[in-house]
Amino acid sequence: MKTNKIDHIGIVVKNAEERLNLYKNFLGLEVTHIETIPERGLKVYFVKIGETRFELLEPINENSEVSKFLEKKGEGIHHIAVNVSGINEAISLAKEMGLKPLSEEPQKGAGGTKVLFIHPKTTGGILLELVEGNH
Amino acid sequence: MKTNKIDHIGIVVKNAEERLNLYKNFLGLEVTHIETIPERGLKVYFVKIGETRFELLEPINENSEVSKFLEKKGEGIHHIAVNVSGINEAISLAKEMGLKPLSEEPQKGAGGTKVLFIHPKTTGGILLELVEGNH
Repeated sequence: MKTNKIDHIGIVVKNAEERLNLYKNFLGLEVTHIETIPERGLKVYFVKIGETRFELLEPINENSEVSKFLEKKGEGIHHIAVNVSGINEAISLAKEMGLKPLSEEPQKGAGGTKVLFIHPKTTGGILLELVEGNH
Repeated sequence: MKTNKIDHIGIVVKNAEERLNLYKNFLGLEVTHIETIPERGLKVYFVKIGETRFELLEPINENSEVSKFLEKKGEGIHHIAVNVSGINEAISLAKEMGLKPLSEEPQKGAGGTKVLFIHPKTTGGILLELVEGNH
């Protein structure tokens, strides 16, 4: 497996339009894509920064993927995603190294990507996402 | 002010040599610089990833900058630093936008850089560092 770059940093926000004051008006960054994903209870805003992106995750209902996170921890960084080549090797490599994948094989991600999450208890407190491909 | 890229992601670790298993052996990344900073109670490891870096912050004594963080929250992401041009405008711009700088003007950072931190209560839970210059 080879790591290419940080793909994105996932950030949970209560209200993305308000929070974009920081990203757009203060930092001068551009929103490149907005997508509502009803089955995950999310509205997602991508904000380009250099070769990577901030991914703002806004819940659109109380059962969203990030509602518990928001309730327990409040707004903040949810995960870090790194772009890799050779994700199919990741499961066995992770297990060899004492890292715990959250699924038994890479899953389908947005836009034809393959993704795999690694449990934060095994990475030093970071929910780590591996992404192969671009979207 | 213009934002160029993510400069680094600061991550608090208990034991960097152990944690490098993740960064070096699993992700295949390279440690480009290691520095002990006695006055901050830190040993810092820079790990290159694409155009940016992970900055692993390991306390070398119980009064280090990150000891309280480690005690309260455990290992994990400490701050996100973005590389900017025009940092001297940042203070007044931040205040206009309801963001709280942690100092009244940019401070001297490593290697001749200028840095300014923004309080996480005003950014949506992220301790945000602005960095001008490269080191």
